[in-house]
Amino acid sequence: MLTVDLKKMEQGNSIFEREVRKLETPVCQLFLDEQGRAAPVAFNPEGKPLNARVAGPVAAEFSHLVKASGNRLLTAKRKNLSPATGRRVAVLFSGGPAAGGHNVVAGLKAVLGGQNILLGVRGGPQGLLAGNLFTIADKDARRILNTGGFDFLGSDRTKIKTPEQFAQVKKICDKNKLNALVIIGGDDSNTNAALLAEYLYPEVQVIGVPKTIDGDLQAGKFLPISFGFDTATKIYAELVGNILQDTPSSRKYWHFIKLMGRAASHVALEVALQTRPAVALISEEIAAKKIPLRKIVDSLARTVIQRAKKGLRHGVVVIPEGLIEFIPDLTDLLKTLNDLLARHVSSLKSLTLAKRREFAAKELQSGQAALFKSLPDYLQEMLLLDRDSHGNLQVSQIPTEKLLIDMTAARVKQLSPGTPFSTNSHFFGYEGRCGAPSLFDAAFTFNLGLTAGSLILDKRTGYMAALSDLNKGGRVLAIPLTGLINVEKRHGQDEMVIAKALVKTNSPAFKFLAARRRAWSAADLFASPGPRQLWGPAARQLPISVALNQGYASLNFKL
Amino acid sequence: MLTVDLKKMEQGNSIFEREVRKLETPVCQLFLDEQGRAAPVAFNPEGKPLNARVAGPVAAEFSHLVKASGNRLLTAKRKNLSPATGRRVAVLFSGGPAAGGHNVVAGLKAVLGGQNILLGVRGGPQGLLAGNLFTIADKDARRILNTGGFDFLGSDRTKIKTPEQFAQVKKICDKNKLNALVIIGGDDSNTNAALLAEYLYPEVQVIGVPKTIDGDLQAGKFLPISFGFDTATKIYAELVGNILQDTPSSRKYWHFIKLMGRAASHVALEVALQTRPAVALISEEIAAKKIPLRKIVDSLARTVIQRAKKGLRHGVVVIPEGLIEFIPDLTDLLKTLNDLLARHVSSLKSLTLAKRREFAAKELQSGQAALFKSLPDYLQEMLLLDRDSHGNLQVSQIPTEKLLIDMTAARVKQLSPGTPFSTNSHFFGYEGRCGAPSLFDAAFTFNLGLTAGSLILDKRTGYMAALSDLNKGGRVLAIPLTGLINVEKRHGQDEMVIAKALVKTNSPAFKFLAARRRAWSAADLFASPGPRQLWGPAARQLPISVALNQGYASLNFKL
Repeated sequence: MLTVDLKKMEQGNSIFEREVRKLETPVCQLFLDEQGRAAPVAFNPEGKPLNARVAGPVAAEFSHLVKASGNRLLTAKRKNLSPATGRRVAVLFSGGPAAGGHNVVAGLKAVLGGQNILLGVRGGPQGLLAGNLFTIADKDARRILNTGGFDFLGSDRTKIKTPEQFAQVKKICDKNKLNALVIIGGDDSNTNAALLAEYLYPEVQVIGVPKTIDGDLQAGKFLPISFGFDTATKIYAELVGNILQDTPSSRKYWHFIKLMGRAASHVALEVALQTRPAVALISEEIAAKKIPLRKIVDSLARTVIQRAKKGLRHGVVVIPEGLIEFIPDLTDLLKTLNDLLARHVSSLKSLTLAKRREFAAKELQSGQAALFKSLPDYLQEMLLLDRDSHGNLQVSQIPTEKLLIDMTAARVKQLSPGTPFSTNSHFFGYEGRCGAPSLFDAAFTFNLGLTAGSLILDKRTGYMAALSDLNKGGRVLAIPLTGLINVEKRHGQDEMVIAKALVKTNSPAFKFLAARRRAWSAADLFASPGPRQLWGPAARQLPISVALNQGYASLNFKL
Repeated sequence: MLTVDLKKMEQGNSIFEREVRKLETPVCQLFLDEQGRAAPVAFNPEGKPLNARVAGPVAAEFSHLVKASGNRLLTAKRKNLSPATGRRVAVLFSGGPAAGGHNVVAGLKAVLGGQNILLGVRGGPQGLLAGNLFTIADKDARRILNTGGFDFLGSDRTKIKTPEQFAQVKKICDKNKLNALVIIGGDDSNTNAALLAEYLYPEVQVIGVPKTIDGDLQAGKFLPISFGFDTATKIYAELVGNILQDTPSSRKYWHFIKLMGRAASHVALEVALQTRPAVALISEEIAAKKIPLRKIVDSLARTVIQRAKKGLRHGVVVIPEGLIEFIPDLTDLLKTLNDLLARHVSSLKSLTLAKRREFAAKELQSGQAALFKSLPDYLQEMLLLDRDSHGNLQVSQIPTEKLLIDMTAARVKQLSPGTPFSTNSHFFGYEGRCGAPSLFDAAFTFNLGLTAGSLILDKRTGYMAALSDLNKGGRVLAIPLTGLINVEKRHGQDEMVIAKALVKTNSPAFKFLAARRRAWSAADLFASPGPRQLWGPAARQLPISVALNQGYASLNFKL
């Protein structure tokens, strides 16, 4: 009976989920023993110390870790023939979910094997502080293999960084007799992993695993990308590709599509490289070239008009989520208004919008006043009132895609009245965080799990698991977390943090976009990357930006 | 060089697009000649006349067609050994795009072969009236095979239904020496195809092909579904599945997801069957049971509260696009307000919202006044002013998903203050119309093209190509268009139209949802259907609602 089968498919047993669990995950040769099973590898330091620029302050803050690692990269070139045994290892997710997290756990479980115990932390850092741990069984690992989401453990956004929190973690480690912690997270979580590794040294090993769909946690040739980026961008690129395919089919709409990815524009860049839309805005370029909002809008309007002249009354504009905060004159205006409002908020509240505008026009200098006046009413209103509890505008609340549509429409009307400009807007975000991992993310994360487990069994601490040379079998690496630390101003104070990797305007990926985008906006040259495939001839594609930046000759990964 | 390869991938040459063009499309055995190539089949009438209920009026309006077909189904059981030759056949897309349209064209081209000529109409019905035709070459057919979108020909929404338009079509047919027209479209387009077939009888044959992502063009066991539905629902179901997987990962959001599909709820039902969310609203059930808005909201709020009590502060609500027009008390209120405004619109325009509310409270009867008062401000404002040029409210402009969020939030606060209810809303539509066809839609449409071409070479007119028995090799059918015609009131007049197939609350698919949904809302039983696969073991899944309604034993199609 079909209805009986359908009931059996509930709770993660769709046809796809059942089949994908059976899919063989590609594993680096180095990890395979003679029976083809995963086995731990051993590491050796290689090359010069990393991060020489801030070596002094970092060595002072992380004296144990730097002394132990020499801040040098570890590479694995051989099996570990005498791995540690009897280790109790806890693993947790930190921050927003990303595809492949489950395979990190499965990889850890595989390499720790029957001689060690893997525990899961429920509910992320908060769950660690609360001691919410359980033992992960073999059947759990089989169950989660190649599935999306972080739901096996759950996650949260608590940051473990205060002395009290560190002491509490130590207590939990003692109570659970933990020898090691694996923290799967982004830049902040790995910064905190470094602090925790230093604090718990040498009793408890701490290993970080690089996760974020934003793609802003990467380390050049040692770590081409974080996990989750490939899946998220493949999901968004399929949707953008579908919409691109729709535009010359229905021949009447411009679609403005905002893509998740907080500060950095890696996601927008990758999706643009995969789909070739008429326009892709890259925040880092706008900041570097100090392009004012007026110019961005003017350029959009001219593209709309030029395409309309060729009979192309449609197009797609890709917009990075963080754009607003990179437009120089707009951020200056925001700062000025924040200061103004800090002084006048209560008197402004009782005024009508018209009166508030008068006030702003009077108080702002002429350039800023003109910019302010050019913004749509709803944004003027937001800028003059909406503030969070610290008095700052919540920039993420600004509907960037609608702002650009409205301003472009106005500019098109000015420059060329009668040019058709019908629009739709989209924001893709949550759709991309918990999809089933692409074959690349599935393989990448399983191997990161094997690497993290190997580091523990090789008695290392304060490292981030990494994998490079994705085009030729994979190179198993560990980056000292202290080697990624930079000194940054945050809230006016020097802080030691792992810096977010932004898009570099001199990177091969950006330069390729810059070289082709004029052609993409002049005609419909889009391609539709299609749904990501787990089987068949189209399953092994890497992110294009990664392949370009790493100098690979092909888009196919080989692990 | 990778950059050189990347340039070659532009304009529809992504890795996926290249590979998918090589994918072998499953074809019904009956179509294959000894060399394994597609060959035309011949048809015979079978069974009793369809549509006996309105046989009289239909036979009067479509006298030629009904006389020729006897309103009987055609079935194909053998090859056509003496097919017509030298036919000039034009094909066009009508209405919104749906995945697989290109394969209908490719199937037509394959079966018409070198003995006949296939022309494409650029720009849909409008392009036909303008005579915008071109000859389709073999390489065109290879190029579009298995690709998404309608962009090869383009489409538009012009309806050909006036005597002047018919005469113009005849002129174009004469000018281009056309023997046949294939119209790929939805219910309205196929109604118009019937009128055109009658008008052009016997000189030009007209064949319809059933397209619509909405799934509301279907004919029981003769036509289980229209093409495009499977791909669209697989795209939406993946996204809904990804978001479901996100909810217990990040553990804090309710997502309200509206899905395209105008009137009927087939899309919402299918996506719910694939993903098992906490709540799926089905418009037809709400209309049938006359459930007022207040009860819908109350039930949502109670689900939120009950789940929160179990620690589930998250969930997903699936909402059909057309919902608003099926909520009985709300549609009554809309009608009353439409009438009121028709009389008072100019005097209302000058009033403030508060004054307009007073007016509405005074003019409405108590029940309607209470309903009106329960709506959020922005909706009250819309209802009291926003009207199209005919004085009707544009219901599609109402943000149903946000309306339900706001009203549910208010009700949760009333019933259980402090229950967490953080929300996100989504509307998926354009993303699903032009994706690469699922393997089912690719096969279904190619076979529909073979069927349409076979009908032409068998000298038939006024039929819709159809395919049934999708679980056992496929049964090649043709449904007389007149057999689908019903008499409906439209704009106050009797019109003969193909009726939209709505979700039946006594259908196996709906009944299965009804039997399981309580369990789905009580706990997280969701499944994630994953991205649709073109290769491998998960590629052959049919829509679950189709398999249930057709009584198939398995979800896998077999053609």
